[in-house]
Amino acid sequence: MVKGMFVANPMEDPLRFQKPVSPCILVIFGAHGDLTRRKLIPALYRLAYERRLPTGFSVVGISRTALSDQQFRDKMRESVQEFLENSPFEMDLWNEFERGLFYMAGDVNDAGIYKRLGETIAAVDSQRQTDGSVLFYLSTQPSQYSQIAAGLGQAGLNRAPEGHANAWRRLIVEKPFGHDLSSARQLSQELRHYFDEREIYRIDHYLGKETVQNILAFRFGNVIFEPIWNRRYINHVQITAAESIGVEGRGAYYQEAGALRDMIQNHMLQVLATMAMEPPAAYEPDAVRDERAKLLRALKVMKPDDVLTHAVAGQYGPAQVGGNQLPGFRQEHGVKPDAQTDTYAAVTLFVENWRWAGVPFYIRTGKRLPKRTTDIAIQFNSAPLAMFQSDGDAGDSPATWPNLLVLRIQPEEGISLRFSSKHPGAGMKLRPVTMDFNYGTSFGARSPSAY
Amino acid sequence: MVKGMFVANPMEDPLRFQKPVSPCILVIFGAHGDLTRRKLIPALYRLAYERRLPTGFSVVGISRTALSDQQFRDKMRESVQEFLENSPFEMDLWNEFERGLFYMAGDVNDAGIYKRLGETIAAVDSQRQTDGSVLFYLSTQPSQYSQIAAGLGQAGLNRAPEGHANAWRRLIVEKPFGHDLSSARQLSQELRHYFDEREIYRIDHYLGKETVQNILAFRFGNVIFEPIWNRRYINHVQITAAESIGVEGRGAYYQEAGALRDMIQNHMLQVLATMAMEPPAAYEPDAVRDERAKLLRALKVMKPDDVLTHAVAGQYGPAQVGGNQLPGFRQEHGVKPDAQTDTYAAVTLFVENWRWAGVPFYIRTGKRLPKRTTDIAIQFNSAPLAMFQSDGDAGDSPATWPNLLVLRIQPEEGISLRFSSKHPGAGMKLRPVTMDFNYGTSFGARSPSAY
Repeated sequence: MVKGMFVANPMEDPLRFQKPVSPCILVIFGAHGDLTRRKLIPALYRLAYERRLPTGFSVVGISRTALSDQQFRDKMRESVQEFLENSPFEMDLWNEFERGLFYMAGDVNDAGIYKRLGETIAAVDSQRQTDGSVLFYLSTQPSQYSQIAAGLGQAGLNRAPEGHANAWRRLIVEKPFGHDLSSARQLSQELRHYFDEREIYRIDHYLGKETVQNILAFRFGNVIFEPIWNRRYINHVQITAAESIGVEGRGAYYQEAGALRDMIQNHMLQVLATMAMEPPAAYEPDAVRDERAKLLRALKVMKPDDVLTHAVAGQYGPAQVGGNQLPGFRQEHGVKPDAQTDTYAAVTLFVENWRWAGVPFYIRTGKRLPKRTTDIAIQFNSAPLAMFQSDGDAGDSPATWPNLLVLRIQPEEGISLRFSSKHPGAGMKLRPVTMDFNYGTSFGARSPSAY
Repeated sequence: MVKGMFVANPMEDPLRFQKPVSPCILVIFGAHGDLTRRKLIPALYRLAYERRLPTGFSVVGISRTALSDQQFRDKMRESVQEFLENSPFEMDLWNEFERGLFYMAGDVNDAGIYKRLGETIAAVDSQRQTDGSVLFYLSTQPSQYSQIAAGLGQAGLNRAPEGHANAWRRLIVEKPFGHDLSSARQLSQELRHYFDEREIYRIDHYLGKETVQNILAFRFGNVIFEPIWNRRYINHVQITAAESIGVEGRGAYYQEAGALRDMIQNHMLQVLATMAMEPPAAYEPDAVRDERAKLLRALKVMKPDDVLTHAVAGQYGPAQVGGNQLPGFRQEHGVKPDAQTDTYAAVTLFVENWRWAGVPFYIRTGKRLPKRTTDIAIQFNSAPLAMFQSDGDAGDSPATWPNLLVLRIQPEEGISLRFSSKHPGAGMKLRPVTMDFNYGTSFGARSPSAY
């Protein structure tokens, strides 16, 4: 950690560099759900703690449960106190924050709800001076996305009211975005009937993770990695997202999704794209997105026969772990006893471009695996000449231990590099050692949650 | 540290890989000096402790001081007890070891000494069965090298006796080897009058240091460093050998040598050659030596005018450090009050070959500097595109903090790599962080002394 080497400039104000955010209302559909409680509201409180919310910022929560504004605020306070990470809970700040929290009960299938929502938005806007900008966050069943977008559109909530020149309306949808190509296309079409493409945010919170963002810093903020970041030096890449838990109450949803849809086609492909894309001309959202998209378009599309040799699916069964009897997937709540869902999936992908041709990318994910770990392991080729003997302990020859660069995403964000070093003492025998960099210890703070 | 990952093979015996050493006698000229006491005998004892000395291995010490064998043994035991590193002192082992220690008093200027030495060698050989092989180690004033070689030659000690087919005679000389090119050539000629080139060992114990040897392991036992080890990626190299102490009683010698002769032309050029040479075809002494020599031959020879712009010399004066009054170099014992000796020297060298053309190598060494440190710092070019903002604390822009790879030789042997990483939190700001590898902590033991 080099921090001590630098004298802090007292004139520096980190907030000066933040892009100013205009006032707005965040409307959350599914406000009584887990995501809102565990992630969204704690993340918003943290932004408030960091003084990064615009003046008048407000939240309108919607779900079927009947709650008063004050009941909603109390529940959210309890959630923040339970799930807040890295920031202290301050009662004074909360009292200020919760004045911007509002709630309305309603069923998204009921057409009347959108008219009432319009009235609520108008009232909050008038009270809090939010300038007419609204962000709709769909934290509901995916099957309701289309209907909510239509409801918002038919009630005219997809467009800002007259007289607010800079006001905007935006729509955020959580995964899964359809269940296959045609359903995803159809959903896109339905959303675009009411919202412009640039108003629709299909979010992947994985891209908010520090290490995923840091892949870009690591690759393009340094000069020493990019020269070896290609098929000439890299033998293969393994991207792993292993969870030790099972479906934990999400059985009904998960049964329809499975590991491939839940993790690989979204999170892990984004990680792959970030790790493998060409350098963008600038660090700007569109430039980075374009390079990611270009990489994804270069993925070799499997033929039906390839699936047999390039993909594996599995499902966890019941097990006894550490004295506990754990249910198999088919015994989980909400799962059919003959479910064919994959709870483990592994695929071998190839990127057909100049940089990566012939380099296998092994992607794998699963639940109820021996440990929870998410990482990208980049294994390099062996040195062209095996000049030295291996240390007796470490394997038969140095060729057995090629360089390995691991970008850890969780549980401990960091980077480690395995290289060969001389074993101390007489003779020249090599053994693999590692250099480590840990975000937490180096920056003295845990990374904020990706939300 | 990855040791725990491997299961040790109980059939492995590290000693099996050691080259067997044939029995011999080591004759040390200057056996009452500091080097013998502090380095040579403790290093030999350590070899005995590791069971790596050949059976019958013996030492004959020579110096002017009158000592009996037993007095010499007692003094050496005290030295080992005082200066031994990394191994325990075991009295039983010492008793075994000291039976091979012998002493004879004599002045190397006295022709009779060589005849007596021949008799001593014959007696020890007969008693200890050393097969007639003798290694002469000249740990004396450099001005005596030539005379000793001649004395050995004229007494016929430069050749093994008849009837010992595999016996050898070898000569080791310590630095300095002459004081300029012509005197070094003359000394070589004088030594070669009695010994073959392959029997003469001009040793540089610096090459025995772990990190110097590890430069080879690091460069050629890994695939990821060699691609960036050239002028395209490396901006410059700094090789530093800084000592905090002054000449410490070596004033008379040092006055004649100076920093450039004492450190740069031998140790530091060897380090440079090891760091910069092309890969040898095999890890064999001749192949490595040839590559080092090739590198040294590619050094740009300075013209007299270049010295003004490419070299600096300095001399330390008196100073008050931490309340202690320290003498200047000219006040040191044995130094003339108007000595022009350099106690600090820095030179900029260029290697005129395909790999290094245009890359400056900054070499510097000195005594009484703020701290003791020896390292090779390889500074890389900046990334071709400054894509990200710098962290406010860390300087104006990422270009200010290029990648830096430091191979530390002392005090703590190890490697550290500085790279840019994302500062946790919102926005994409970089700051330099380091990954470290430390020999001592990774291998659980300090490296043995270079001797």
